[in-house]
Amino acid sequence: MRCLGVWTMLTVAMCVALLGCLQAQALRGHVSVILLGATGDLAKKYLWQGLFQLFLDEAEQGHSFRFHGAALTAPKQGQELMVKALESLSCPEDMAPGRCAELQAQFLQLSQYHQLKTTEDYQALCADIEAQVRQEGLREAGRLFYFSVPPFTYADIARHINSSCRPGPGTWLRVVLEKPFGHDHPSAQQLATELGSFFQEEEMYRVDHYLGKQAVAQILPFRDQNRQALDGLWNRHHVERVEIIMKETLDAEGRTSFYEEYGVIRDTLQNHLTEILTLVAMELPANVSASEAVLQHKLQAFRALRSLHRGSAVVGQYLAYSEQVRRELGKPDSFRSRTPTFAGVLVHLDNLRWEGVPFILVSGKALDERVGYVRILFKNRAFCAQSEEHRAPSQSPCRPRQIIFYIGHGPLGQPAVLVSKNLFRPFLPTKSWKEVEDRPSLQLFGQPLSDFYAFSPVREQDAYSLLLSHIFHARKESFVPTEHLLASWVFWTPLLDGLAKEVPRAYPGGADNGRLLDFEFTGGHLAFSLQQPEQLVPGPGPAPQPSDFQVLGARYRDSPLISAWPEELISRLASDIEAAAVQAVRHSGTFHLALSGGSSPIALFQQLASGHYAFPWAHTHLWLVDERCVPLSDPDSNFQSLQAHLLQHIRVPYYNIHPMPVHLHQRLCAKEDQGAETYASEIMALVANSSFDLVLLGMGTDGHTASLFPQSPTGLDGEQLVVLTESPSRPHQRMSLSLPLINRAKKVAVLVMGRMKREITLLVSRVGWEPRKWPISGVLPTSGQLVWYVDYEALLG
Amino acid sequence: MRCLGVWTMLTVAMCVALLGCLQAQALRGHVSVILLGATGDLAKKYLWQGLFQLFLDEAEQGHSFRFHGAALTAPKQGQELMVKALESLSCPEDMAPGRCAELQAQFLQLSQYHQLKTTEDYQALCADIEAQVRQEGLREAGRLFYFSVPPFTYADIARHINSSCRPGPGTWLRVVLEKPFGHDHPSAQQLATELGSFFQEEEMYRVDHYLGKQAVAQILPFRDQNRQALDGLWNRHHVERVEIIMKETLDAEGRTSFYEEYGVIRDTLQNHLTEILTLVAMELPANVSASEAVLQHKLQAFRALRSLHRGSAVVGQYLAYSEQVRRELGKPDSFRSRTPTFAGVLVHLDNLRWEGVPFILVSGKALDERVGYVRILFKNRAFCAQSEEHRAPSQSPCRPRQIIFYIGHGPLGQPAVLVSKNLFRPFLPTKSWKEVEDRPSLQLFGQPLSDFYAFSPVREQDAYSLLLSHIFHARKESFVPTEHLLASWVFWTPLLDGLAKEVPRAYPGGADNGRLLDFEFTGGHLAFSLQQPEQLVPGPGPAPQPSDFQVLGARYRDSPLISAWPEELISRLASDIEAAAVQAVRHSGTFHLALSGGSSPIALFQQLASGHYAFPWAHTHLWLVDERCVPLSDPDSNFQSLQAHLLQHIRVPYYNIHPMPVHLHQRLCAKEDQGAETYASEIMALVANSSFDLVLLGMGTDGHTASLFPQSPTGLDGEQLVVLTESPSRPHQRMSLSLPLINRAKKVAVLVMGRMKREITLLVSRVGWEPRKWPISGVLPTSGQLVWYVDYEALLG
Repeated sequence: MRCLGVWTMLTVAMCVALLGCLQAQALRGHVSVILLGATGDLAKKYLWQGLFQLFLDEAEQGHSFRFHGAALTAPKQGQELMVKALESLSCPEDMAPGRCAELQAQFLQLSQYHQLKTTEDYQALCADIEAQVRQEGLREAGRLFYFSVPPFTYADIARHINSSCRPGPGTWLRVVLEKPFGHDHPSAQQLATELGSFFQEEEMYRVDHYLGKQAVAQILPFRDQNRQALDGLWNRHHVERVEIIMKETLDAEGRTSFYEEYGVIRDTLQNHLTEILTLVAMELPANVSASEAVLQHKLQAFRALRSLHRGSAVVGQYLAYSEQVRRELGKPDSFRSRTPTFAGVLVHLDNLRWEGVPFILVSGKALDERVGYVRILFKNRAFCAQSEEHRAPSQSPCRPRQIIFYIGHGPLGQPAVLVSKNLFRPFLPTKSWKEVEDRPSLQLFGQPLSDFYAFSPVREQDAYSLLLSHIFHARKESFVPTEHLLASWVFWTPLLDGLAKEVPRAYPGGADNGRLLDFEFTGGHLAFSLQQPEQLVPGPGPAPQPSDFQVLGARYRDSPLISAWPEELISRLASDIEAAAVQAVRHSGTFHLALSGGSSPIALFQQLASGHYAFPWAHTHLWLVDERCVPLSDPDSNFQSLQAHLLQHIRVPYYNIHPMPVHLHQRLCAKEDQGAETYASEIMALVANSSFDLVLLGMGTDGHTASLFPQSPTGLDGEQLVVLTESPSRPHQRMSLSLPLINRAKKVAVLVMGRMKREITLLVSRVGWEPRKWPISGVLPTSGQLVWYVDYEALLG
Repeated sequence: MRCLGVWTMLTVAMCVALLGCLQAQALRGHVSVILLGATGDLAKKYLWQGLFQLFLDEAEQGHSFRFHGAALTAPKQGQELMVKALESLSCPEDMAPGRCAELQAQFLQLSQYHQLKTTEDYQALCADIEAQVRQEGLREAGRLFYFSVPPFTYADIARHINSSCRPGPGTWLRVVLEKPFGHDHPSAQQLATELGSFFQEEEMYRVDHYLGKQAVAQILPFRDQNRQALDGLWNRHHVERVEIIMKETLDAEGRTSFYEEYGVIRDTLQNHLTEILTLVAMELPANVSASEAVLQHKLQAFRALRSLHRGSAVVGQYLAYSEQVRRELGKPDSFRSRTPTFAGVLVHLDNLRWEGVPFILVSGKALDERVGYVRILFKNRAFCAQSEEHRAPSQSPCRPRQIIFYIGHGPLGQPAVLVSKNLFRPFLPTKSWKEVEDRPSLQLFGQPLSDFYAFSPVREQDAYSLLLSHIFHARKESFVPTEHLLASWVFWTPLLDGLAKEVPRAYPGGADNGRLLDFEFTGGHLAFSLQQPEQLVPGPGPAPQPSDFQVLGARYRDSPLISAWPEELISRLASDIEAAAVQAVRHSGTFHLALSGGSSPIALFQQLASGHYAFPWAHTHLWLVDERCVPLSDPDSNFQSLQAHLLQHIRVPYYNIHPMPVHLHQRLCAKEDQGAETYASEIMALVANSSFDLVLLGMGTDGHTASLFPQSPTGLDGEQLVVLTESPSRPHQRMSLSLPLINRAKKVAVLVMGRMKREITLLVSRVGWEPRKWPISGVLPTSGQLVWYVDYEALLG
C-alpha cells in the first residue's frame, strides 16, 4: 500500500466501509467497465443504474471497479451529460439515505468520461487502464465493454478493442452487444462473421433483455424446482397449448424510422418471444445452472422448430401507422406501408415431447392493453359427475389448469408465477418470491385470482441489473450465442420473406379493435376469425364455391376425363381413390394401390393424409409404380417422397408397404441382384391375378409414363411385369412396372397437371396406340377402367 | 263388399270418416298386431299408447288393423285388465275432444284380448286371423308380434309363432324384442342362436328405446342435414371429446332383483349409450334413410372400438344399495353387493376419424340430477387478441364450442339440439323442430342458453310411438341387428369380467356425492380424481415411492446387475437405452439397436413409446435379435409385436427398420433363399464394424438367449453373423443373430423378469462359460459392456 492513487484509495475506503474486505479485494481483482454510448437513452434509463447495482453487489464481495463512460461527444460536454445521468441513480429501498448518498458519490468518483472516436482514443483509454493497474499494483480480473451503440458501428469498435484493448493472459475480455443483430439470416450471418473475426464466442454476450425479466428468468428454475410435479405434465399428452404474448398499447410514433425497417416480427418475435419459447420447450438439463448444458438443450429446441410458411402467421397494422411514417420519414401522400405492427404466429416443434402442441406467439402495438405473459394451458382430462350447481369450486378438476409466467403490466401489474390450484402447489424460493395477496375482483385468464397459487418477486428488479450481474458472473446461459441467433434467423427469415408483399389487416387501435385481430388455427394454418370487413359486404353474386366449377363430363382418348382447377382435381381424385379402396376392401379384404413418384402426387398424398378418415389404410397395400435407382432414403427416391408426405401421417402396417428393391447387396439396380424379378414375384404372390386395384400414373412432357420412356427396349410389351429402364434425365437408372402389368389393373388413373403439360396433352389427345413413341398411349387396361384427371392448366393452357 | 263382418264395417266406417280412403285401404292391406304381455307395465305405460298413435297415423293412410292383446291371464280377467289400460289412451293435443272419443272407441273395438298359453291357444289365435282375413276378402299385409315379456319366455313363444302363426307368402312377419338381450357375450349369442332358428334376421326388431328418443333419433338426420358445416369438424382434428351421459336421481329400490344381476353397465351402457356412441362415431352414408347402409356403417363403428381393459372404467355404488338388496332379496346381514350402480367408461375408436378422441360414457343411479345428453365438445383453436373485459360475448371464437343432443330432463326439461353460436347456425326441419325461447337465468354446460342456437321438438313424442312407427315402416336402422348386439357384447364382456371382483367406490347419493365420482383420464386410463377417503388419512409414514425401493448395486456373473420391481426395472432400462441412443447419435449420428421378441420387452416397448420425448428415433435403426419363421404380419412374429407396441407409436423412418428376411420368395426360412446371409450383409453394410450400439436379450427357462438354444449346431461360435436355428417349441424354425455377432456389441442388456425365471437365474449365476449347455452363458461382449436387468421376482423367487 505504498502508493495509492485517488481511485484506489476511494475503492479501499468504500470496501472497508462496507465489509472490511481488503484481503478479498486483492484476491478478486480489478474490473474495468467501458460503457460505449454512455450518454444514450438506454444508458440513462437502465445501464448506469445497472452498473451502480453491480457496484453495490460486487464491491461488497471484494472487487474493485472503474467505470469508463464513452461516446463520440467531446470530453467536456460528454462528462457533463454523463454526470447528469448519474445523478438519478437510486439505492435499494431498505438503504439509509445517508449511506445511499455516500455510495452514489463513490460511484461518481469511480466513473470517468472518454471521447472515443479515433484509434488513438482507444489506445489512450486502454493505456490508461493498464498504467493505472500497474501503478496501483492491482490484479486485473477483466474488462467489460458494453456496446450501447447502433449495430453499424459494431465492426469499427470491435476492431479497435481487438487491436488496442485486449488484456493480457489471465484477464477476461467481455463485450456486450445489444440488438438488433441483423435484419434477416444473411445480414445476421455477416454481422456474426465480422464480430467473430475480432472476438471469441465466449467473449461475446448478446443481450436479449427479456431473458432478464424476472418471470422469464424464473422459467428454468421453476421447471427445475418443480420437476416432480411437472415431469409427467410437461409434454404433448398434457399441454393443450402454449401462449407467449406481448401486447403493447403504445404505437410506433416517433420511432417509425426504426420500425418501418424492422416491423413487429423482427422487433419482438424473432428475439424475445422465440427465446422464451425455447425456455419453455427445451429439455431440462440435470443442472440448470450449467451454462453449457442449458445452451446445448436450448439449441436443440431451436432445431426442433418446424419451418414456418405463409399460413403460419396473421399480420396487422394499426390505422394511423402509414400516416405516421409519411410524416416522420417525409414520404409522399400516396405511400402505404406494409410493415406489420401486429403478428400472431403458430409454431410447432417436431419432437416427441411437443409434437402437435400449438405454441402461439402474439405481439403488437396499439392494442387494448399492455401485458406480457407465457401461458401453458393443460388439457382438460376430467369429467365432473356433479351438475354445475352442486360442483365445488377452486380445486375442481373440471376448472381450467394453467401455469402462467406473468412478465408484467396488465391487470395484475407486477411480474408473477401463477399455478392453478387444481394442478399442484408449486415450490418457489421463498427468499426471492412471495405469495400474492388475493384481490377478489381480479379475473385473470377467465378465473379469479384465488384459483391460483400466485407468487411475485419479493423485490422487483430491472432486467438490465439482473443481466449485468449475469455478465459479471459469466452466466452465458442468459445470453444469445451466435449459433442460437443464426438458428432463430434461419427459422424466421422464410416467413419474413413470405410476408414481404402481404398487405397487413388494418386495425383501429385500442379497445376498438374488437374481434378484428382474433385468429384461429387448424392443422398448421392460422387465419383471422373474421373475414376482412370489405369481404363481408356481399357482392353482386355469391362468392364462387369449388362445386361451382364445372367438372367436365368429357372424354379424352376415349376414356372418361375429369378436369378442374388443381385443388378440386386433387380432392376429387383422392375421393375416387378412397371410394375404390372402400369397395375393394369390402369385396376382397384388401386394396392394392400402386403409386407414381413425381411432384403432382405430393398434393394428393397430403390430401389423403389429412382428410379421408374412413380410408381403410390397415387393409391397404402400397406399391410403387416406378423408382429411381437411389437408396430409399435419398431425397430423389420416389419412396422417400411417399414416406414424407403420406406414410408418416397414416398407419399402414409395415408389411403392407412395398418399396421397390432398387438397393440390394449394397448396390443399385444391378441386374444380377434380380430386384425387378423379386418385385414381380412379390406382386404375383400378394396381388390376386397381378391385377392392382388402382394404379396411379403421371405423364411426362415427352409422353413417358411410369419409368417407361420413349423407345424403351423393355417394359412396353412382353412378359416381364417389372423392368429396369433408362431415363434421359438423372438419375438415369430406373425400375418400373411394365405396360402389360399396368394394363392388368382394375382401375388406372392418370394425373396430369400444370401448364408445362399443355403441349403433350394436346398431342397425346390426337395420337393412336403408339407406345414406342409415346408410352402413355399404351395405357389401355385390358378389362379395367382408365380415367384421366387433367387440370385446367394442362388442358386449356 | 258382399259380406262385411262387424270389424271391417267399423274399419271402413272409420276410414271413410277420416279420409274416404276405401280404395287406399284395399291397396295397403290389413295388419294384425299381437302384443304379448298386453297387461304388463310397459304395455300400460307406453305400448298401447304407441299402438293407438300408429292406428291414428296409418289408418289414415289406408291400412286396416286388428290389435290382439295377449297374456297368460284367463280371458275374462285379461280382457278387463286390457280395457282398463286402454281407457287412458290420449289423442294429440290439437284434436277435438269429440273426435278423440270417437277414435278411442274405434280403437277399443278393434282390440281384443287372447289368453296365450298352449300350442292350441296360438293355433286358435292365428286361425282366427286367417279366417277373418279370408271371410272379409282383405289383403293381408303383415303380422306384428311385440314381445313385451321376460326373455326366458322368448324361445317358447318364438317356437309357437314359427310353427303356428307364419303368414303366407307376400305377407310380412315382424317380431319385436325387448332387452335384456343376454347377460354377456355367450348368453347373448345363445339367445340369438335360439331366436335365429325360428326367425329370419329381417323379421326381428330388437328395441333399444333410446333410439326412439327424439334427440337421439335426430343425431343422424342432423349430421346429414348439416353436412356442409360438419364435414370438416366431425373428426379428431376438431373434436376435443364426446360425452354420452345418463344420470338418474332414482335408485334401484324395488328393482334390486333385476339390478343385482345386471348392474349399471349391462343396464344402460352396453345398450343405450353404446348405440348412441355409434350414431355419433359412424361414417355417414350418402343416404341416411337407407337402412342397409346405415346399419353397415354402424357396424363398422362397433368394429373400430378399441378393446376395454380394467383401467378403462371407474365404478361406484350408492351407500344404501347393499341394504336394499339384503332387504328385497332376503340376504344375510353380512352380504355386501359388488354390483356397480355408477360407471364412467373411457372409450376410444381406432380409426382415422376418431383416433385419440376420448368418448366418455357415464351412467348412474342416486346421482344429483336426472339428465341425459350427448355432448360433442370441440377443440378451442382460437386466440382472442382483446383482453377479457374488451371481448365481445356470444360469438367470440374463444368461448367453448359444442353441439349437444339433449335427451331430456335436467335444467332444460325437454329434448333439444344445441349448437354453440360461434360454431354455425344449424339446419333443423322446421316442421318438427322449433327454436327454444331464451331463459336468461339458465346456464347449460357452463354457458348461458343464449350462447346456443337451441331447438326443441314442435311436439314431444314418446320413444315407443316413434319406434312402433319405424317398425311398421320397416326402418330397420332404428333397431339392433344380431351382429350389432353381439359386437356390443364382444366389446363389453371383457370389462364386465374384469370388474367382477372389483369393489365399487361407495357414494352417499344425491348432491352429497360432492367430488367423489369425478374422474380423470390420461392415455387410455381413467381414475377417480379423489383418492378413497380412507387412503387420504396419512398413515404412520409417507407412502412408499418407487425411488424408495433400493436398486441393488450388485453384480451378476461378474457384470453389473440392476434389480427392482418390474415397473421400475422397465423404466430404468428404458432410460438407459435412451441415454445410450442420445450418446450414440451425438457421437456417430446413428443408433443401432437390436431388439428381442418375447413378452418381457412389450412393457419396455410401451414405455419407450409413451415417454422418452427426447429419444432420437429419426436417427435410430431398429434390428431384430431373432425372429420366428412366420410371415411378418403373423401374430407369432417378433416383428409384429414390435410393430404393434412400438413402431406404430413413434416415427422411425421406414428404411431404418430392419425386419429379418424370414419370408422370401413366398417361403419361410428356406436355406437357399439366403435370408440369414442377406441380413448379415445388411448389418455389415450399415452397422460400423458390425458392432451394434445396444443389443437387448432375454433369457429362457432353458438358458437360451436370442434364438440360440442349447446344443444348437449354429450360432454359438464360428464366423456366421446370422444363422437359422431350431427351437424346441413351435414355431420350430428361427433366425437369430449369432453369439459372436452379439458379443461385438458396444452394450448388451439382458432383461429377465418373472417368477418362472427364478430357477434358471439361480443356475446361470453359478455356471461358467458353457454356451453349448446354456447359450446365455456365452454372452460376453469382447470390448463392450454387459448389464443384467433382473426383476425381484426372477431374482428372489
